Amino acid sequence: MAKLRALLVGATGIAGQQFVSALRDHPWFEIGAIAASPRNAGKRYDEAVAGGWFLSEPIPADIAALRLLDPGAAPRGVDLVFSAVESDVARELEPRFAAELPVISAASTFRMEPDVPLLIPPVNAGHVGLVTAQRARGWRGSVVPIPNCTTTGLAVVLAPLAERFGVRSVVMTSLQAVSGAGRSPGVAALDILDNVIPYIPKEEGKVEAETRKILGRWVPGASAVEPMAIRISATCTRVAVQDGHTETVSVGLGRPASLDEVKDALRTWEGSPEARDLPSSAPRWIEVLEAQDRPQPRLDRETHGGMATSVGRIREEPVLEHGVKLVLVSHNTKMGAARGAVLVAELMRARGFLGR
Amino acid sequence: MAKLRALLVGATGIAGQQFVSALRDHPWFEIGAIAASPRNAGKRYDEAVAGGWFLSEPIPADIAALRLLDPGAAPRGVDLVFSAVESDVARELEPRFAAELPVISAASTFRMEPDVPLLIPPVNAGHVGLVTAQRARGWRGSVVPIPNCTTTGLAVVLAPLAERFGVRSVVMTSLQAVSGAGRSPGVAALDILDNVIPYIPKEEGKVEAETRKILGRWVPGASAVEPMAIRISATCTRVAVQDGHTETVSVGLGRPASLDEVKDALRTWEGSPEARDLPSSAPRWIEVLEAQDRPQPRLDRETHGGMATSVGRIREEPVLEHGVKLVLVSHNTKMGAARGAVLVAELMRARGFLGR
Amino acid sequence: MAKLRALLVGATGIAGQQFVSALRDHPWFEIGAIAASPRNAGKRYDEAVAGGWFLSEPIPADIAALRLLDPGAAPRGVDLVFSAVESDVARELEPRFAAELPVISAASTFRMEPDVPLLIPPVNAGHVGLVTAQRARGWRGSVVPIPNCTTTGLAVVLAPLAERFGVRSVVMTSLQAVSGAGRSPGVAALDILDNVIPYIPKEEGKVEAETRKILGRWVPGASAVEPMAIRISATCTRVAVQDGHTETVSVGLGRPASLDEVKDALRTWEGSPEARDLPSSAPRWIEVLEAQDRPQPRLDRETHGGMATSVGRIREEPVLEHGVKLVLVSHNTKMGAARGAVLVAELMRARGFLGR
Amino acid sequence: MAKLRALLVGATGIAGQQFVSALRDHPWFEIGAIAASPRNAGKRYDEAVAGGWFLSEPIPADIAALRLLDPGAAPRGVDLVFSAVESDVARELEPRFAAELPVISAASTFRMEPDVPLLIPPVNAGHVGLVTAQRARGWRGSVVPIPNCTTTGLAVVLAPLAERFGVRSVVMTSLQAVSGAGRSPGVAALDILDNVIPYIPKEEGKVEAETRKILGRWVPGASAVEPMAIRISATCTRVAVQDGHTETVSVGLGRPASLDEVKDALRTWEGSPEARDLPSSAPRWIEVLEAQDRPQPRLDRETHGGMATSVGRIREEPVLEHGVKLVLVSHNTKMGAARGAVLVAELMRARGFLGR
Repeated sequence: MAKLRALLVGATGIAGQQFVSALRDHPWFEIGAIAASPRNAGKRYDEAVAGGWFLSEPIPADIAALRLLDPGAAPRGVDLVFSAVESDVARELEPRFAAELPVISAASTFRMEPDVPLLIPPVNAGHVGLVTAQRARGWRGSVVPIPNCTTTGLAVVLAPLAERFGVRSVVMTSLQAVSGAGRSPGVAALDILDNVIPYIPKEEGKVEAETRKILGRWVPGASAVEPMAIRISATCTRVAVQDGHTETVSVGLGRPASLDEVKDALRTWEGSPEARDLPSSAPRWIEVLEAQDRPQPRLDRETHGGMATSVGRIREEPVLEHGVKLVLVSHNTKMGAARGAVLVAELMRARGFLGR
Repeated sequence: MAKLRALLVGATGIAGQQFVSALRDHPWFEIGAIAASPRNAGKRYDEAVAGGWFLSEPIPADIAALRLLDPGAAPRGVDLVFSAVESDVARELEPRFAAELPVISAASTFRMEPDVPLLIPPVNAGHVGLVTAQRARGWRGSVVPIPNCTTTGLAVVLAPLAERFGVRSVVMTSLQAVSGAGRSPGVAALDILDNVIPYIPKEEGKVEAETRKILGRWVPGASAVEPMAIRISATCTRVAVQDGHTETVSVGLGRPASLDEVKDALRTWEGSPEARDLPSSAPRWIEVLEAQDRPQPRLDRETHGGMATSVGRIREEPVLEHGVKLVLVSHNTKMGAARGAVLVAELMRARGFLGR
Repeated sequence: MAKLRALLVGATGIAGQQFVSALRDHPWFEIGAIAASPRNAGKRYDEAVAGGWFLSEPIPADIAALRLLDPGAAPRGVDLVFSAVESDVARELEPRFAAELPVISAASTFRMEPDVPLLIPPVNAGHVGLVTAQRARGWRGSVVPIPNCTTTGLAVVLAPLAERFGVRSVVMTSLQAVSGAGRSPGVAALDILDNVIPYIPKEEGKVEAETRKILGRWVPGASAVEPMAIRISATCTRVAVQDGHTETVSVGLGRPASLDEVKDALRTWEGSPEARDLPSSAPRWIEVLEAQDRPQPRLDRETHGGMATSVGRIREEPVLEHGVKLVLVSHNTKMGAARGAVLVAELMRARGFLGR
Repeated sequence: MAKLRALLVGATGIAGQQFVSALRDHPWFEIGAIAASPRNAGKRYDEAVAGGWFLSEPIPADIAALRLLDPGAAPRGVDLVFSAVESDVARELEPRFAAELPVISAASTFRMEPDVPLLIPPVNAGHVGLVTAQRARGWRGSVVPIPNCTTTGLAVVLAPLAERFGVRSVVMTSLQAVSGAGRSPGVAALDILDNVIPYIPKEEGKVEAETRKILGRWVPGASAVEPMAIRISATCTRVAVQDGHTETVSVGLGRPASLDEVKDALRTWEGSPEARDLPSSAPRWIEVLEAQDRPQPRLDRETHGGMATSVGRIREEPVLEHGVKLVLVSHNTKMGAARGAVLVAELMRARGFLGR
């Protein structure tokens, strides 16, 4: 099976760099072309990111030598697009690409549009078929976004609980890493050292709406996802952590469940069958930790290559009916961003929505 | 009015150093004697803390030259005791002191005993009379502990809400500073840099029980406080912040209230009349901040000398009935520890429970 | 003596905010007008900095309500200008102001020009007379910059050594705080958490050249400062510290000196007589600490209101001839920036170079 | 070739955990037995480290189930000892083991004794033969320590410079990570957040003496190493970095050399031939980085599995004769500790000093 060639748009930013890393030596995809802001067009990739390369691994040599395209130019010789642009740029660029090509995007722009599936493959692989509804836009391709990085860990943990017990309500506080904010502007050092910032613009609303859509129901042929009826209350904060979002989560279940049943539901969850054997799949999507002081972002973010969500401190929640509470850690720039987007592309290819 | 002379026990630890700072130039109290672990007895204070002085202000010269007493020796010529020892040491030492003297303590040991008031002066100054119940122990003095530093900010913010609307339920996540843990063992640098520790031993149970007791009802002559019937769910985490605990709080009120009513209740709250004009009283106990990204520990912990609780992000809480949510910051080593204990001593003196 | 009225240019940035703080309740100066980038002209100060106010103290009420001027407009009714603009903006703006008014500037632009004194009042107050050389530019005012914040602590500590023993060579490594870099772009959180950045653009050359000029010799009437002949080697790094630059310094003295003589020279140094009794003067400009593990930025940056340089770890330096080595901490945004600039203005007023 | 079986002493501390990690799946060695403090004897390894496991990788299953031996018991069925105990414990324990077995140690105790080689295999593999001098102690085994973690990066970088140009003097400032200090007591969070600690007990003297010994000359049969005659001046500081020591280094060479010659010497250095093809050898021991702002600990510590030293900012050093200056990053718990010790064991086996 020949590798599909991808155009990476927004390649020089932090998110773009993470795509470069996530696609290194990928068995199904290769970066065939890269684009960034017009002022960088024509530069070599390593020149364009000079001084701003964020990752500890070096730039792959073949990518380093690629010349940046103007993102407005028509892409040639590529099979799909990975988009790491800001949401306002996405609004203009992604539809242009989608006219011809599938676009897997980390931008928030199209997440909540009715004909757009919002995919976390182990949670709702079945929603992928909704992309065909985008043909009504006159597109031969499609836009398939991934959720906000804070949504991802939450939705992964709620999925097995919703399947087994039902979920009625969620109170969540996030302690988010700085890497998700990128570098320009990103989080300033002087704002986060010795500090907590208790507000991330628009984040709480995204988490609440996206979670309901991801856990919702889509039947083939339907023109939209029917969101799950959960009351969700999110408070999103930023802390002095490099990578890995921590979330404290109180869940009101649909029926009584013992802590052992809850742990069992999380431990034995295998997720959507379509997502089990993809190249980026984790052997287990959720790891339940018994140590009282886990999960911790520094110790647990890299579990299964950053694709698993670690859960611990599973306890009774006295305030919510049929309540249980827990703490989770999810890697915001791996499962929650570029590697999660690559996983979506893998699902699409496996399901026949991608490729030559 | 002559200053009362205090014995400071546990003077060399981080908590003890904070008492030294809180009592510097105090109009009503002065440190007349200090004690620490027996191995330090006889040393000058500045020798005993050498290399471990934690505060940016220098050791006051008169305190630096004091010789440490053995804590087992009978204190002479002092009017009260401030205790900054660990809880296991407190179990043995504090009753011995209380036989003769009032002991204001930062230790958790006696907080939940029925004949012990747990005081935050602006919240429950009226509980102070419960100390007389300790005469039944055969003590001429008493033990009066302050709450856990995480309880303090929460109870201060719940007090005006309980008074005006009633409070039925609370879901709280704390993001706690490292200073509260002290230095031996304290929090290790390698555990908290680039990390969150989602567990603090015994903390959550303390917050839940102490809050109910502090907000409870005591009528003069009663032998115990009747705790308030609130369901409380706490998740306590540690973050890379030096000073100042941040808490995200969801509250289910006793009746519907608009956000404006809630802000008004917090803004106009004056607290117990007995606590208004003490030397350490804040001009306002609660500061309501309108900026979306406040309160932040680095910016807001020192408000009114670290004695005020800063509150922001007041929003509707969709999960709890009559719900409101907010974020608070409280200084864990000032209002939440030594300066809070001094405030309790001030209240006791003003109410006639201290002094010659 | 009536207060002089100052125009503060670049008032909304981090450096500008520090000037607002440094001038709060100043006995000799008051902020009469503020200016910032043209797009903010006409806005109230508190609106213009909304969400970007960096200091833990609130904005003074009278400043909050001031309307921002366009920096291009001619200032009226002011006696001097404090400039907190970037160096490229300074190149254009400061000469325009200097045509009429004295400009005390934190920008690097004019520091090395021959007719410009580079002042640290305790070190080289006598250089102030060089401002009159600027009349040859056709200015009725002048530009008087302060040094780079990393230069300041170094020059303060070298001054008494140069006076007493002579100084031939200096090898210095700085560990600089993030606050000096401002917020846009400033240091990104993801670059400094769990990290050291071993390079600060242009910093090392500034430190080397400025130190020689500050310690140099100016005789009244001369058209320039004759720089001191010291070989200086600086390596400037950035670390995860909020405020306070630490510098490790090896000094080759001009003649042999014992460590006690060196300590004595530092301890007893009083600095320029003209700088001793200004409103912002520290009671001692250098504090020598004996504890082995001091100075530390968190503990020592605020000494004497952030105007003193703390020195410790004074040891023999085996590599340099007549070598001594030490560690210093200097507050980069107080003595090293806004408060240092205010001190220069105070010196100028005391010496008759300012005022009506 | 059968694997040699190692006893790991001090297995539960941070250093011991790093040995567990360094020996995971090692082709030549396996952990056959573990020992720790007597109070833990008999416990399973995973029980003994519960709550204190420091690494993000899980404890290997076979090690987790091992029972801890009392370190005083005679080890049976093992071929060598890796020692991760504190230096005072090493003084007593290591000679006892050395009576029968080779002991590779991370402790400082024996480093400076005349009959003890201090090995960094790429730098001074030839010194290994000095172990035979220890037979005069009546030992059938030997003690072979590795250097202090701060010495390692410095000696690696000086080695090619000494070989090509000679080295006469070194002025070094280290910015050290917290992981090297371990956890009990280690560095307290409240001492390092927003701070620099400019002193590490005994560190500077170790760096100076060890570097001279490592770079010294040993001829087969000689009873000791003749140290290299370099003047070294070290200032060691602690910063808020998890792993990876940064050092700013000024070197006075033995003869003039251009920066290109210096870079070439570093880039082309292959180190001792005996150290080139060991299982833990890096493909290059030194990586020279051209980007102005490198090396950085977060980005460069893991180069070649943490076994390479990254060097950048190579510039002229104006103060020292024939001076050059640079910045280096070396992984303090990999090349500088456990993995460096395993590399020494590999060298010893390859040279016939180990094994059955």
